[in-house]
Amino acid sequence: MKIALDAMGSDAHPVPDVAGAVLAARAYNVSVILVGDENKIKAELAKHDTRGLDLPIVHAPTMIGMTEHVEAVKAKKDASMNLAVKLVRDKQADAFVTAGNTGAAMAAAIAGPYLLGRIKGIKRPALTTTLPTATGRVLLLDIGANADVKPEYLYQFALMGSIYAEKGLGVPNPRVGLLSNGEEEGKGPQVVRDAYALLKKSKINFVGNAEGRDIPKGTMDVIVCDGYVGNVAIKLSESLAKTMVGFIKAEIKKRPLAVLGALLAKPAFDALKARLDPSEVGGGILLGVDGVVIIGHGSSDTNAIKNAIRVAKEAVEGNVVELIRAGVQEA
Amino acid sequence: MKIALDAMGSDAHPVPDVAGAVLAARAYNVSVILVGDENKIKAELAKHDTRGLDLPIVHAPTMIGMTEHVEAVKAKKDASMNLAVKLVRDKQADAFVTAGNTGAAMAAAIAGPYLLGRIKGIKRPALTTTLPTATGRVLLLDIGANADVKPEYLYQFALMGSIYAEKGLGVPNPRVGLLSNGEEEGKGPQVVRDAYALLKKSKINFVGNAEGRDIPKGTMDVIVCDGYVGNVAIKLSESLAKTMVGFIKAEIKKRPLAVLGALLAKPAFDALKARLDPSEVGGGILLGVDGVVIIGHGSSDTNAIKNAIRVAKEAVEGNVVELIRAGVQEA
Repeated sequence: MKIALDAMGSDAHPVPDVAGAVLAARAYNVSVILVGDENKIKAELAKHDTRGLDLPIVHAPTMIGMTEHVEAVKAKKDASMNLAVKLVRDKQADAFVTAGNTGAAMAAAIAGPYLLGRIKGIKRPALTTTLPTATGRVLLLDIGANADVKPEYLYQFALMGSIYAEKGLGVPNPRVGLLSNGEEEGKGPQVVRDAYALLKKSKINFVGNAEGRDIPKGTMDVIVCDGYVGNVAIKLSESLAKTMVGFIKAEIKKRPLAVLGALLAKPAFDALKARLDPSEVGGGILLGVDGVVIIGHGSSDTNAIKNAIRVAKEAVEGNVVELIRAGVQEA
Repeated sequence: MKIALDAMGSDAHPVPDVAGAVLAARAYNVSVILVGDENKIKAELAKHDTRGLDLPIVHAPTMIGMTEHVEAVKAKKDASMNLAVKLVRDKQADAFVTAGNTGAAMAAAIAGPYLLGRIKGIKRPALTTTLPTATGRVLLLDIGANADVKPEYLYQFALMGSIYAEKGLGVPNPRVGLLSNGEEEGKGPQVVRDAYALLKKSKINFVGNAEGRDIPKGTMDVIVCDGYVGNVAIKLSESLAKTMVGFIKAEIKKRPLAVLGALLAKPAFDALKARLDPSEVGGGILLGVDGVVIIGHGSSDTNAIKNAIRVAKEAVEGNVVELIRAGVQEA
């Protein structure tokens, strides 16, 4: 399997990108094509033991920065993101992974000079992430690709999310919820109520409305919403966890005995930290695109890049794109 | 000042309702009119020292349960909620407080047999709450009264929230944010983008888009959104905090040294717990109604009821309803 990695993606590119690629190539037995500034990539590669690994370089003379607008995708044809997407389009790679500018990565896949395009019948691609729950993880989509949606989009997000959770994340018969402001049918904005009706008569394992409280509970495997509320939910989750940790640290510092206590309890807190650590997830899949596209956080470290490549590999192995294509045809 | 309390509101009614009224009457020097089953209220009052306090009873033969639909508000004219609202309508009380069924309480105020009605010019009332932040609290609205909104509703929520934060919560020149899925102008669903334009040219201290991460940050005093995303945000916040605490407890239990450490650090955790404790807030005001209406959580304890009465008193003293009336006329 060949994964095309935008080596200029992360904020600290290409350091964690290349290091993560080296780790992933060894751990998952995949080829990782490093797309970006050849000299910089070579300099990074020289720092690692790459014997026996397949880590070819494709030179890209430019790149798209984190603060650039999506228009840059069309303007910079030879940017690392575009050339990495082109490898997938030309069947020279099985998946595209980047920790770069999310909007630009979506644009490169959907509307760039070497676009993969949408799967036939899919109205709108959806950006996903998985969040930690009391029992495991939940797949949330859309988290920002579509601020305004129609009932049919939400239905398709549920269909794609269900297929991906089963085949890409290994959850048998995933329980799919529809995010609303009340658990009963009939609660929520009109678009949610109309989507409820579509989901109810579908073959999806639809378990009804999800409330905000259900996101961390672990009682659903997939939760579907528009990209506005989904984006608010993930940013709120991340920020609230940090605020709570910051507050408890400040309270502990005020009390010498609590400082000692916190030292003794540190392994338990480290376990919480690991559980909340986004680098264990690596990246979220962009569903609905005719190819495997994994987008990670700009702050990705080596471990995050490695895991994003693992997520890509699992999506390729799960044949997620073909199954979504078949699912849409059938529906 | 006279506060009409639905004594049959909380899940454990009338126990915490009456006990909270006794505490509030003493602490805040207000009369609390207890509306509900006279015999039950008398039996509860007998358990307390009420010397010198003004705690009259208004008998209500029926009540509206937590699981009843809002239609019950029209069907049960003599329910405690309706009779408490009637006291405000008839100028026999300055505010209405309940820990009962939220939907029914809103209906009693807006569309019940003794409705207070909307303030002239207000399109839709909005339900509010305050959430803890890194630096204090933030007022969030709407949190569930309006799942679908128009730009003008959001503008009015911002106007009402700004007036209430200043006069009811004592925040000078409150910073008002509009919840979106990106900080830049132009981000978000169409309704949010249109509301942005209205807010930008208003006299409100509008600081731009808020992202989900801004809710707990403490950089804004008021955050405005539709009732769908607001409801998701508050339920997610509550649930995530509980999930994190539950997870850390489980991890501590696995490790004997961590158990000892947690004991030593307990005062710091108690401080966090107090900060997250919703009973310190008591209740949220329903803005846009022609009268002060405070709605608390069904799980309210004595302290929550006491604080809900405080919130009512502060809103009356702040002359919030009249100021909103004037603000809407001016705008």
